[in-house]
Amino acid sequence: MASEPAPISFARGAPSLDIVDVDGLRAAADRAFSNDPAGTTAYGTSIGYRPLRAWIAERHGVAPEQVIVTNGSMQADAFLFEALVEDGDVVVVEKPTYDRTLLSLRSRGADLRPVELQEDGIDVAGVEALFAEGAAPRLAHVIPNFQNPAGYTLSADKRRALVALAAERDMTIFEDDPYVDLRFSGETLPTMLSLDTADRVVYASSFSKVVCPGIRAGYLVGPEKLISRITKLATNTYISPNMVAQSIVNEYVRADDGAAFNRSIETIKAALSERASALCEALRRELPDARFVEPEGGYFLWVEMPEGTDGDALFAAAAERGVQIVKGTDFLLEGGENAFRLAYSGVTVPQIEEGVARLGDAVRSLGVAA
Amino acid sequence: MASEPAPISFARGAPSLDIVDVDGLRAAADRAFSNDPAGTTAYGTSIGYRPLRAWIAERHGVAPEQVIVTNGSMQADAFLFEALVEDGDVVVVEKPTYDRTLLSLRSRGADLRPVELQEDGIDVAGVEALFAEGAAPRLAHVIPNFQNPAGYTLSADKRRALVALAAERDMTIFEDDPYVDLRFSGETLPTMLSLDTADRVVYASSFSKVVCPGIRAGYLVGPEKLISRITKLATNTYISPNMVAQSIVNEYVRADDGAAFNRSIETIKAALSERASALCEALRRELPDARFVEPEGGYFLWVEMPEGTDGDALFAAAAERGVQIVKGTDFLLEGGENAFRLAYSGVTVPQIEEGVARLGDAVRSLGVAA
Repeated sequence: MASEPAPISFARGAPSLDIVDVDGLRAAADRAFSNDPAGTTAYGTSIGYRPLRAWIAERHGVAPEQVIVTNGSMQADAFLFEALVEDGDVVVVEKPTYDRTLLSLRSRGADLRPVELQEDGIDVAGVEALFAEGAAPRLAHVIPNFQNPAGYTLSADKRRALVALAAERDMTIFEDDPYVDLRFSGETLPTMLSLDTADRVVYASSFSKVVCPGIRAGYLVGPEKLISRITKLATNTYISPNMVAQSIVNEYVRADDGAAFNRSIETIKAALSERASALCEALRRELPDARFVEPEGGYFLWVEMPEGTDGDALFAAAAERGVQIVKGTDFLLEGGENAFRLAYSGVTVPQIEEGVARLGDAVRSLGVAA
Repeated sequence: MASEPAPISFARGAPSLDIVDVDGLRAAADRAFSNDPAGTTAYGTSIGYRPLRAWIAERHGVAPEQVIVTNGSMQADAFLFEALVEDGDVVVVEKPTYDRTLLSLRSRGADLRPVELQEDGIDVAGVEALFAEGAAPRLAHVIPNFQNPAGYTLSADKRRALVALAAERDMTIFEDDPYVDLRFSGETLPTMLSLDTADRVVYASSFSKVVCPGIRAGYLVGPEKLISRITKLATNTYISPNMVAQSIVNEYVRADDGAAFNRSIETIKAALSERASALCEALRRELPDARFVEPEGGYFLWVEMPEGTDGDALFAAAAERGVQIVKGTDFLLEGGENAFRLAYSGVTVPQIEEGVARLGDAVRSLGVAA
């Protein structure tokens, strides 16, 4: 056949449209303009739409003054780094970690210290070792649940250990938690924010994964003094974030006393669970030499091929077959040539099966034992 | 009477709710989710929601690649300054000018050179004089229509002269034009963007004043290379701006082939015109020593009291009477003690009359001849 294979993308951490509750959003938008026309259409303030801020504060058991709602959590990260990270500051990142976090911290001149990400989360002893060596990290960026790119989850014991270490060493933990509500198996673990008694944790999350990405609503929860500093940065950057979008989110999460939002999350989780299972099964069948950990939630899976696999060649061979993956090297300052990230959030089960079959063909075309 | 007077605010440049088309926005939101659910809910790209970008490009007669749509025009300014202004760069600002622009440029370490704002706009000879003195400004920030805070408009001749000067001297003009569509008297003048043939103008505008501020949608139009650089800054800051909000704006401005949007602008202009007239009339009656220029559009009026008037005392005396104004000093690096800004966008005609009566009382309480 001369025709090109249909493209299948495992590249982007975004939901497919079928798991976005478009009707629920349309109805929430209608209520936003009807129930609070003034608050929805006016400038508002840089802390975000107040009723949504109150909802977030209640959900995390904190005072509203500890919360700022931003235009997506990336913007929250940018403000946080602007407030906390100076040129040359030592910052711990997970190895591997989200590529945009690396980029953002590097552009601020941070002295990045990648610490091994194990299957139960960051190697806490590795963070301690940095202090022993005299590096004294000021900040540690940690994605505790269903990590991007690895899909791994930080264990409860390690959460406690990290919070204790942060308190002891005056280090701030940036708990970056956009996937927290997308657990489809295993037990929910406490946030480090909830374990912290020393004002050493700043928590970020987002509505991108439970409402939709285009709504660009994320938030930070942290010590009141830090949130107040960030509020000033926000005022000077954009006066206020999007009130229309945040008012829609507020109506969406509060509908039916939260029951509608919970149903929507269940729908998303059921789809993700099915996709993750299908992906793991297909990988075991098509790429028997691949190593990966079956995720308990979230969007991503990290695949390690045998040492010596040429990641660039595999990326190209996959692309030739219409399959998009993200190279492991994107998530690391060095290494990762034999790894890649698969996002299963934006693909259906038939696409997963077809995509992994093509990926197996791509691997075999490189002459790697498969 | 012991009761406090009802507060009347001439402080904030924001529309009153009665001139926001809430029903039109609600309907536009409904269409956004129905007509393009995928584009509205997905991440989109950092250049903004493509159909809205196309609409803006068409309106300004430029290629879409020359446009980026951002989370409000303040965010556009922030990106532009990040791209163009380095520590120590000489930047021309109008004297007086928008306080947030001063703040933003100062925080980047710009060497600000305020040039007199005359009743027909910035003193172009004053900008030329800077070159003659060897200062060589890299950027000039100009609000051409119904300037904030003064309400003055840059004449057609000065627009041409400034564009010619910029081309000759390799200076970029930042044409900051959020009020352009709010002209209620006099003749519409060409944008400097449309007069520029040397890629020396970057134009910014916003939907805050013609749709609503809470929608936070602004944009830049400029040389393709510069827009492309800014697009990278936007990607790294927030991945993409608010697609939900921009899709709503797109539906709003395109409804009825633009006829509904035009009707809504006419409603806003009629209200602003009535308010501006009422304000000028009340000022002539209550503050006969005040100097001001009756605006031809926009939100603001700049009032100069006789030399020696104590602006801080006047601000306090007004506040005691429940009237909020903004001190002239906020809009200047130095001077402005005898001036203040009045915004008439957020007040009704009866509020204007009552507010100016109280302001007259405040002025008389200072012992200034009135």
